[in-house]
Amino acid sequence: MFEAAEVGRKIAKSEFKRREPELHTRLLDAQRALRETDIPVIVVISGVEGAGKGALVNRLNEWLDSRGMQTFAFWDESDEERERPFFWRFWRTLPERGTIALMFGSWYTRPIINRVFGKIDPSAYEKDLTRIAEFERMLTKDKALVFKIWCHMSKKAQRKRLARESGHALRDWKLSPLARRYSKHYDAFARVSEQAIRATDTGECPWHIVEAEDPRYLHLTVGMKLLDALNHRLTREASVSAAPDERAVTRRVGTGDETRTVLEQVDLGRRLSDKRYRRQLAEYQRELNGLVWKARKKGIDTVALFEGWDAGGKGGAIRRTTAAMDARLFRVISVAAPTDEEKAHHYLWRFWRHLPRAGHVTIYDRSWYGRVLVERVEGFAPESDWMRAYQEINDFEQQLCEHGAVLLKFWIHIDKDEQLRRFKERERIPWKMHKITDEDWRNREKWDAYEAAVNDMVMRTSTEYAPWTLIPGNDKKFARVEVLKTFRRGLKAAL
Amino acid sequence: MFEAAEVGRKIAKSEFKRREPELHTRLLDAQRALRETDIPVIVVISGVEGAGKGALVNRLNEWLDSRGMQTFAFWDESDEERERPFFWRFWRTLPERGTIALMFGSWYTRPIINRVFGKIDPSAYEKDLTRIAEFERMLTKDKALVFKIWCHMSKKAQRKRLARESGHALRDWKLSPLARRYSKHYDAFARVSEQAIRATDTGECPWHIVEAEDPRYLHLTVGMKLLDALNHRLTREASVSAAPDERAVTRRVGTGDETRTVLEQVDLGRRLSDKRYRRQLAEYQRELNGLVWKARKKGIDTVALFEGWDAGGKGGAIRRTTAAMDARLFRVISVAAPTDEEKAHHYLWRFWRHLPRAGHVTIYDRSWYGRVLVERVEGFAPESDWMRAYQEINDFEQQLCEHGAVLLKFWIHIDKDEQLRRFKERERIPWKMHKITDEDWRNREKWDAYEAAVNDMVMRTSTEYAPWTLIPGNDKKFARVEVLKTFRRGLKAAL
Repeated sequence: MFEAAEVGRKIAKSEFKRREPELHTRLLDAQRALRETDIPVIVVISGVEGAGKGALVNRLNEWLDSRGMQTFAFWDESDEERERPFFWRFWRTLPERGTIALMFGSWYTRPIINRVFGKIDPSAYEKDLTRIAEFERMLTKDKALVFKIWCHMSKKAQRKRLARESGHALRDWKLSPLARRYSKHYDAFARVSEQAIRATDTGECPWHIVEAEDPRYLHLTVGMKLLDALNHRLTREASVSAAPDERAVTRRVGTGDETRTVLEQVDLGRRLSDKRYRRQLAEYQRELNGLVWKARKKGIDTVALFEGWDAGGKGGAIRRTTAAMDARLFRVISVAAPTDEEKAHHYLWRFWRHLPRAGHVTIYDRSWYGRVLVERVEGFAPESDWMRAYQEINDFEQQLCEHGAVLLKFWIHIDKDEQLRRFKERERIPWKMHKITDEDWRNREKWDAYEAAVNDMVMRTSTEYAPWTLIPGNDKKFARVEVLKTFRRGLKAAL
Repeated sequence: MFEAAEVGRKIAKSEFKRREPELHTRLLDAQRALRETDIPVIVVISGVEGAGKGALVNRLNEWLDSRGMQTFAFWDESDEERERPFFWRFWRTLPERGTIALMFGSWYTRPIINRVFGKIDPSAYEKDLTRIAEFERMLTKDKALVFKIWCHMSKKAQRKRLARESGHALRDWKLSPLARRYSKHYDAFARVSEQAIRATDTGECPWHIVEAEDPRYLHLTVGMKLLDALNHRLTREASVSAAPDERAVTRRVGTGDETRTVLEQVDLGRRLSDKRYRRQLAEYQRELNGLVWKARKKGIDTVALFEGWDAGGKGGAIRRTTAAMDARLFRVISVAAPTDEEKAHHYLWRFWRHLPRAGHVTIYDRSWYGRVLVERVEGFAPESDWMRAYQEINDFEQQLCEHGAVLLKFWIHIDKDEQLRRFKERERIPWKMHKITDEDWRNREKWDAYEAAVNDMVMRTSTEYAPWTLIPGNDKKFARVEVLKTFRRGLKAAL
């Protein structure tokens, strides 16, 4: 989930200076328009300790008009608060319609801390999260815009910042004493926070995970996302008849370091020599064969899915994998356009129906992620549908994993040049010609939109129980072996 | 929750015969219209063992066209089912758009049974319920109509039926062997089922609790409710611009035994002599005073709310109660039309803000239940809003109770004649004149609509942790003492 927020996004000082005035003006415009509506806006600022949440809150206070906004910090609880149900403190800070409340710390803070330090058990924590989701749903149904920011920083970046600030005589005070204490529990916080985000990342009030290492990037991105969210709601309010959705566009303004995605983290330079490929292929296939039989005996089922760019080599990787398995034990489901019958059901229905029996393997060549990839980019599904899908997918996969299935999710990545080379090769070589269509060329034109969608997908669906594996695919040999290795690792862990 | 489904509603054979043909025809019409839409309909039939669910399912099969409907029974799980995640069995039975699936037993069955027999702990059960709520929410967002019937029977009625059927040589086979076994755990089933209903009784797919003692009443009522739900959705589909809501009307067709409400269970004949009243009043007030001080010491807060008919005697009962308390320990909040500031927030906000500190008492003279009473009947809130409110209210009250508060909910009941007598008295007696307005007379005309709303309110919000107390109010003296007694009992239990 957080890996997509550890890719080193940055904004140069000069660029920040250039763009800030316009953002500032547009935020004030939106805030003015908001005043005329019956929408209360709740901005929740959460995230890793030391990520600079305080500075972000200050910046938003600088940008927005204080007459329509209030900031609330939730520190130690007062007597008044302690003597009433937990949510009382939040109810009394809820903003009036047409105004904004900025929550620095929120209903998430206490449950997360309690869980990290073992003060509550997993089921109490889950109950807290369910209550939070209900609370936010209730506010949303009452027209509120609940805008949630999670400021993320990698463990390394957090350490670096703490070290720097601690040593700096003038800046030392900026660091809350808690930051030091909490930073010792980075991994636990990450795990517990991920669960909170997953349980409350709904279509109506999604989380925005933003990389916090570069403050300029953090501030500008949060400002733009807030502007988008406000304008989106204001437009919807103005004309209930579906206004064209501008979000996908504004999300991707800017260039360079700012628009980096998790895919750029994939090291496409990795290759395998012919000789090593042949040896490793044979070795891993043999081993996988044994593992699949063992899983059969133990009644453990495996679900693997492959997504990736056109011509990325999904088919080849799948064939090298199934070659290792007994034909009675696996099925490959190729996902193309849905049939009439499938269209007459919920989009997940077509995947549920093919789930393997105990001890079997189902491989999906493209999968339920089509909802948040092609359907999103091509506009086949309205935004409200695909935004909701992340949580539906997470829940679906959680059910699989709770049932004991091994779930493997592959994105096979290639770069744009490599795709072009392969497309041309397909046009040239007779037996590959059938594999290239006009649609492939059309999809290629939407590369950036797809890349943004993949980034969001990894951000919202790479979970503790079902993480994504991003496979470098420029070298097909390397990719195939890597898939086999991951498969083997997954089965071994479950057996 | 179930008390509103134990009031002895019945339909005579002749009336059933008279009304059935029309219902049958209209159901078929609705089913035909449904076919042209993209709405899948899921009918869930659940309820107490021995309530005649099987006969109901048969009846619905008789009424509806089998070409657009399928029935699924969930008995013992098959190998196929066991080897896949629990919900797989339901996914594969989900209906296509435009068709109906009748679920005899459902996703509720196993969690409820597991909980009753202690196979899962409370937190696992809560998790199951959360998952069910998410599942239904997902289906609903995908346009499905999820129509849920709970067939209820009192413990006594269940026993009677089992005894009758067991002895009857020709009908014995109708009784599943499970019915006998489960009937021994009636109370546990009631408690566990109530929790399930509460957790999943959402505005979008509410539960319909129907009294099952009289099969004719059960069948006709379910048929009519299903017809209403279908037509409601079809109308909404046809014109997105709010169609007038016909439900409240059709809900109340029919007369006599069929329209009985929980209020008719209240024994309005109860009275108290002047002498006993004076003695008991003094005694209970003295005792209550001591208890309130004790609660203060222990830091236990009390929230009491009073609802009831105009001129029902709420004010008098509240004054007799507060007379027993130290003025520093209680506050009475009179709830009238919301202020501007209150209107600018969620409707629950105005009640949250007045919650007492530890050890104090807040008494609400009218309360958050206005949402599902006056706002519903007068049309101040659209149906989607007040339907959602039941769950929001239950959740709010649960938070209060989890925090340790004592929560007391009073409905002071009088009959229509008594109200008329009091209205006239108010017009006659100079110092009571200010208490009667034109609005009171207008409200009186809507007596039936209010009574239906009260019945639904008790059905959906009388929970294990916060039950309603219905106070017979024709004799003011009796009512006042009864309120004091309940107050005393509630505090005693908590201390």
